[in-house]
Amino acid sequence: MSPRLRHLTTLENLPRDTIERLLDRAEALRDACAHGTRKLSVLAGRTVLNLFFEPSTRTRTSFELAARRLGADVVNFDIGFSSTSKGEELFDTLHTLEAMHLDAIIVRHKQSGTPDELVGHAMSGVSVINAGDGNRAHPTQGLLDVLTIRQHRPDFENLIVVICGDIKHSRVARSDIHALTALGTKEIRVCGPSTLMPSAEEFPKVHYVENFDEAIRGADAVITLRLQKERMAAIDLPDEAAYFSHYGLDQRRLALAAKGCLVMHPGPINRGIEIASDVADGAQSRILEQVGNGVFVRMAVLNELLAR
Amino acid sequence: MSPRLRHLTTLENLPRDTIERLLDRAEALRDACAHGTRKLSVLAGRTVLNLFFEPSTRTRTSFELAARRLGADVVNFDIGFSSTSKGEELFDTLHTLEAMHLDAIIVRHKQSGTPDELVGHAMSGVSVINAGDGNRAHPTQGLLDVLTIRQHRPDFENLIVVICGDIKHSRVARSDIHALTALGTKEIRVCGPSTLMPSAEEFPKVHYVENFDEAIRGADAVITLRLQKERMAAIDLPDEAAYFSHYGLDQRRLALAAKGCLVMHPGPINRGIEIASDVADGAQSRILEQVGNGVFVRMAVLNELLAR
Amino acid sequence: MSPRLRHLTTLENLPRDTIERLLDRAEALRDACAHGTRKLSVLAGRTVLNLFFEPSTRTRTSFELAARRLGADVVNFDIGFSSTSKGEELFDTLHTLEAMHLDAIIVRHKQSGTPDELVGHAMSGVSVINAGDGNRAHPTQGLLDVLTIRQHRPDFENLIVVICGDIKHSRVARSDIHALTALGTKEIRVCGPSTLMPSAEEFPKVHYVENFDEAIRGADAVITLRLQKERMAAIDLPDEAAYFSHYGLDQRRLALAAKGCLVMHPGPINRGIEIASDVADGAQSRILEQVGNGVFVRMAVLNELLAR
Repeated sequence: MSPRLRHLTTLENLPRDTIERLLDRAEALRDACAHGTRKLSVLAGRTVLNLFFEPSTRTRTSFELAARRLGADVVNFDIGFSSTSKGEELFDTLHTLEAMHLDAIIVRHKQSGTPDELVGHAMSGVSVINAGDGNRAHPTQGLLDVLTIRQHRPDFENLIVVICGDIKHSRVARSDIHALTALGTKEIRVCGPSTLMPSAEEFPKVHYVENFDEAIRGADAVITLRLQKERMAAIDLPDEAAYFSHYGLDQRRLALAAKGCLVMHPGPINRGIEIASDVADGAQSRILEQVGNGVFVRMAVLNELLAR
Repeated sequence: MSPRLRHLTTLENLPRDTIERLLDRAEALRDACAHGTRKLSVLAGRTVLNLFFEPSTRTRTSFELAARRLGADVVNFDIGFSSTSKGEELFDTLHTLEAMHLDAIIVRHKQSGTPDELVGHAMSGVSVINAGDGNRAHPTQGLLDVLTIRQHRPDFENLIVVICGDIKHSRVARSDIHALTALGTKEIRVCGPSTLMPSAEEFPKVHYVENFDEAIRGADAVITLRLQKERMAAIDLPDEAAYFSHYGLDQRRLALAAKGCLVMHPGPINRGIEIASDVADGAQSRILEQVGNGVFVRMAVLNELLAR
Repeated sequence: MSPRLRHLTTLENLPRDTIERLLDRAEALRDACAHGTRKLSVLAGRTVLNLFFEPSTRTRTSFELAARRLGADVVNFDIGFSSTSKGEELFDTLHTLEAMHLDAIIVRHKQSGTPDELVGHAMSGVSVINAGDGNRAHPTQGLLDVLTIRQHRPDFENLIVVICGDIKHSRVARSDIHALTALGTKEIRVCGPSTLMPSAEEFPKVHYVENFDEAIRGADAVITLRLQKERMAAIDLPDEAAYFSHYGLDQRRLALAAKGCLVMHPGPINRGIEIASDVADGAQSRILEQVGNGVFVRMAVLNELLAR
């Protein structure tokens, strides 16, 4: 069995059994919650701090709920999102927080690699959890996505999963690909404007299919990504309506997928841009299950890193 | 006995026995606090979320204290007050929060009716509590106001209550009128500039008395409302000093009321505009009692909605 | 034995035995923490409110951690830092908070004397703790500084302590001088540009030494203060590099001090302005110990003021 994690900054190169252990734990917590156990005390007396250099109320709240439901105290360190804290200034902040005897720091930063830099400079037993760094990784999102898929389709070796949108700038896509790869997914396809694709070298086993109709054919799960509106300039398309006609998930396209294809999105959704309203709200949508799984996955991660 | 409430969005049409049950509960919690019980555990393991689209530190803190004193966890969802979240975007936020297994959402929004829209779209067992929506309702303020009156003058059928100020745009006034009406108050008078009065049809049993000296004569309680300074433009008066001379509560006017007339204000007060300092700080002022009752009323509401 | 404190607004004129009682308590809490006791329940059911009119994430977080580790609930009252609340408006806020049955209000305000005004106007049993007011006092910083010194050098009657920087505008310096004086420190020296020194009358027993090389000679502890960059205009020096060459603590200067001289700074540090990086990170630096002691000192103060 792989050793217990002390930090979680990326899913890249994480052993399959570690990922499965986290998913199993999340599942057990979900079952306990369904049976009425709303609060545990495994982290009683521990303190978790949210250090968000980019605003994200949803993710921060999900982590806050996860930590509290394990009995931990949570402190939001309001760093001010104007701060571009990096280098020595960032490490001084880290060391100050460590000196206050925290157990975990949950960090979001627009600079890729910041969580690993914090790990490299940590002097105490504090655990670092990446809540999203630049374009690089958003490991708990990757975990909650594969957990959601596994709850419906545990046979990853038979699955075709499509990720559609701006893959190049998406930490969600990267963590999804790492998790799906670790679990042995049969085929991962990415789809979107060619200018928003990663280099072929980055993910040699991932298939790029430019045409969404072709990409979705036979897919068992499709993950649509939020279009950052400032990316429209980089795309050879006149407007959001054109984006939707090329890369939007609507009922016609969903019908091309395998029967029961899971519809997923990390949220918040842009209705009518990357996904049609009736698909987002339809019977195949797993979007709200993803949100619920997010809390359980984060509880599992905190439990893995902090429990004695 | 009226059935237990699941949501609280308005006091309009709430049965008298429901209101009295909430007031009795608030009173019992107040007594327990006076005897040293500062924290209960009836809501242990439950999570309450503050979703404030308008800033209100006082009200938010009052709800936060109420929830914590019942043992609940409280999360402040900092939506950013620039957000004008409505329609699908608002409901997506609601559904996201529901998916995180919250027990109650306390919402303040500048658009009247938003809390009822949330109730209409809620998919889970979450309770919605209105902390103020537009001009429409502020039910916990209405409850704390009648609780404060009841502690001194429980004989509502003998009472004359005056509300003075901008009734038209006041959710506090509306919730006060609903609560006072339900409890059988003998006479409710409103007073203020004619341009700031509601239509006669809205409250057919409420008496509009333009002249404050006349309105306050014989009153057992007078509720002065905060003047929103941007309303001065809608009033045929040159300045705030003129407003005070017409509608300000001073000692001379208070002497026209019944002996022991209760002086109330939802806060924060504008001294010298709607109320004279010596009246606000005087022996008949119940303004701080209102604040204290606010916490107990909110505890009672949370207990009503959430306790098993 | 001096009576228990009800408020803590300044260290000025505090009896030595009171200061020592607080330091002893902080030390005991530090020992308990080192042996694994991360959370106590002495303040269970009590509520502490942070009322910060100036932003200070570090100090606020330190107080928040301290209160939670004693079992108290903590509410952050986000007053909006644009507010210049003073006079009646400030006292109305105080009375509103008191009416909500809080146990302690931790206040930071840019106006010197605000915490004492709150004490003067408090109507209930609420305790006021000063988290920094103007140039006047930052008593918990003073306590954590002398605690840090005492852990290494408890023989204050033999110690020479130097404080270097903008003494005139520093509440940290004032609270340090008060604490060091109460504990019988042999010699306190201040150093810095003459325009940034307090009047000779304010601290008659403190020695002003303009030249840092002279000031540090034989010192047992040196406290460097953060240079507020807007103060450069008041100094007869061309730039920050010149400030560093005159008043920066580097290895050459530290070598002039007594062997093992403690290097201290209230943080956050400006590397290369008031302190050289290698000194801040060096073996003699106590800067992170100060941060850790800050939590224990604040626990001790909350325990002194609030425990039954």
